[in-house]
Amino acid sequence: MSTPKVASEFAIANEAYVKNYGGKLPLPPARHVAILTCMDARIDPIASLGLKEGDSHVIRNAGGRASDAIRSLVISQRLLGTTEVVLFHHTDCGMLTFSEKEIRDKIKETEGPSIAPHADQIAFLPFSDVEQSIKEDVEFIRSHPLILKDAKISGWVYEVETGKIRQVV
Amino acid sequence: MSTPKVASEFAIANEAYVKNYGGKLPLPPARHVAILTCMDARIDPIASLGLKEGDSHVIRNAGGRASDAIRSLVISQRLLGTTEVVLFHHTDCGMLTFSEKEIRDKIKETEGPSIAPHADQIAFLPFSDVEQSIKEDVEFIRSHPLILKDAKISGWVYEVETGKIRQVV
Repeated sequence: MSTPKVASEFAIANEAYVKNYGGKLPLPPARHVAILTCMDARIDPIASLGLKEGDSHVIRNAGGRASDAIRSLVISQRLLGTTEVVLFHHTDCGMLTFSEKEIRDKIKETEGPSIAPHADQIAFLPFSDVEQSIKEDVEFIRSHPLILKDAKISGWVYEVETGKIRQVV
Repeated sequence: MSTPKVASEFAIANEAYVKNYGGKLPLPPARHVAILTCMDARIDPIASLGLKEGDSHVIRNAGGRASDAIRSLVISQRLLGTTEVVLFHHTDCGMLTFSEKEIRDKIKETEGPSIAPHADQIAFLPFSDVEQSIKEDVEFIRSHPLILKDAKISGWVYEVETGKIRQVV
């Protein structure tokens, strides 16, 4: 078993974390909340929202898209007792820089035509307006039949230029 | 527009973060890596792996399941230049505590029989052995046609009892 480069660096950095580890916490989030945000490297949800370990589920995917997070949100609410969802999309998101066609074409150019059925099968879910995508995704969660009817759901922009959050819905 | 309770607390905590914000970073991850891990509230990937803002994509879902992360991984590699994937599942995971049937039955008991078609439609992806699920998910990523053939992929257990990471594959 070989260890790739960055994973090796993680293992070394992890040794310092283990020395100061606070110890065992309960499984259900203490603040009964699930955060949904983008995988973007510049976003640290725990630091930027003042979270402590144990406070909140953190769901992250490309764009912070709701349709890709429903499985996790349902598990969060139905098994682990969260009742609030805080959704963030962000400025300068990679998802604002391409269309479904463009990412599919890019993959086909790199890999050749045999990849086409695979590339065409995935919905990559880009968006062109960050406030609009937040409104759509909050509505998607709110109206999903498996989401708790009385869940509190809000949608926010995270500004990567400043680290600031701003409520949209 | 009302602001739910925990989201209001986030907005207050965020003000301190903004004051010390380091400023603009490039969109592509500096260390060319994507982390995939669970949404579990006790896990802080940035602190536990020694990351800085800008270093790594962080994808999180219930369990850290690969099949639910393919869209994000493909965007990470094809548009934003990552070439390494570090996957973590963890001890004491909520996904070890139920079966597909149990979560579906629980939702049906709460909501009544009309919810059944919706509950039965989602694969919740629980697992019963954390090392086995890591091996399966690393293999799933490695063999996926849209993932880069030369991507470096490793799979690790994160121990919530100690904060320690341990390579499985």
